[in-house]
Amino acid sequence: MTMFERIQPRSGVAFLVPQGACFEVVDPDGGQVSDLLAFASDDPREALSNGRTFDYEETIKLGEGNTLWSNRSRPLLKIVKDTVGVHDFLLTPCSKATFRHFYPDKPVHRGCFGNLAAALKPFGIEEDDLPCAFNVFMNVPVDGVSGALEVKPPVSKSGDIIRFRAECDLIIGLTACSAYASNGGSFKPIDYRVVTDV
Amino acid sequence: MTMFERIQPRSGVAFLVPQGACFEVVDPDGGQVSDLLAFASDDPREALSNGRTFDYEETIKLGEGNTLWSNRSRPLLKIVKDTVGVHDFLLTPCSKATFRHFYPDKPVHRGCFGNLAAALKPFGIEEDDLPCAFNVFMNVPVDGVSGALEVKPPVSKSGDIIRFRAECDLIIGLTACSAYASNGGSFKPIDYRVVTDV
Repeated sequence: MTMFERIQPRSGVAFLVPQGACFEVVDPDGGQVSDLLAFASDDPREALSNGRTFDYEETIKLGEGNTLWSNRSRPLLKIVKDTVGVHDFLLTPCSKATFRHFYPDKPVHRGCFGNLAAALKPFGIEEDDLPCAFNVFMNVPVDGVSGALEVKPPVSKSGDIIRFRAECDLIIGLTACSAYASNGGSFKPIDYRVVTDV
Repeated sequence: MTMFERIQPRSGVAFLVPQGACFEVVDPDGGQVSDLLAFASDDPREALSNGRTFDYEETIKLGEGNTLWSNRSRPLLKIVKDTVGVHDFLLTPCSKATFRHFYPDKPVHRGCFGNLAAALKPFGIEEDDLPCAFNVFMNVPVDGVSGALEVKPPVSKSGDIIRFRAECDLIIGLTACSAYASNGGSFKPIDYRVVTDV
């Protein structure tokens, strides 16, 4: 069985997942968010799309059984296991600009956006190509009447897991989140592994 | 005063709006949706972003007083007048793929996506560059608990209007929507005008 790799706090990685293989994201300590991006390996201009996913899944709350779709209306990932059920697909990765906006008295960090951009650069993917991320374990309740949203600490506990199956050959970007609000003010690692023998 | 131009049913247009100028979108007959895209004229890789907008506005319901932001965290449009207050920024423009998915027994249409792509092509903007649109007058209630969304007929009446101020030089794409669900099954025109003497 493949061992888990660790994404250190406030950093990110990118890796390939072939069609039919799975990858797992685990919250080792509990209460941490992991921003996830996916691009088609054969043409990375095809990428994860929150809007197309909301269209086809007819919900903004995605969990086990749901599919994440591309901007070209193709299934990229299927969520095949999910012990949490609370994730966000509305908000964009934290960045220098969001740090300046939301934490004006704290040091500016390149955030998940900068970490994803750096990790994906070797695959020819540039900053402007980064779509909205699927924010694993991120807890963003929405008031259905007013539309107001709020970033709350994740409900994930130590050992909680989400497993995705790649519906085509994919480049995946993944972080251990850098923002204060999304992980309750503590920066923690994220574990992941690709599982090809499923 | 500039006269209104008419966007015929199931079609789209693109036009330039200089920084500081406004443009207005009017529902002439009531109950019609208009998909809106915005790109920075000096570099169209900077475009409207639903995720960045949800981040900074802290709501998924945008109306008078709200700003629509770019993927580079810059304000693109400010909503300065809005007689409806019900619009959608979750869903992507209807396309050949969405027609096949949602209306398998109806003729396939290129939809707002195809109309926007055709109208924006002369500006060097390609299909893969089209982000999620701000869907003017589109009525998509979200259940805050389950996350489920539904496309309902617009609540806009004949003569209802929304006015945007351009916060930088912009290329705007705008449609009269082509999908059955979003306009209650009837295809109607949309009127618009650019107002520079504000």
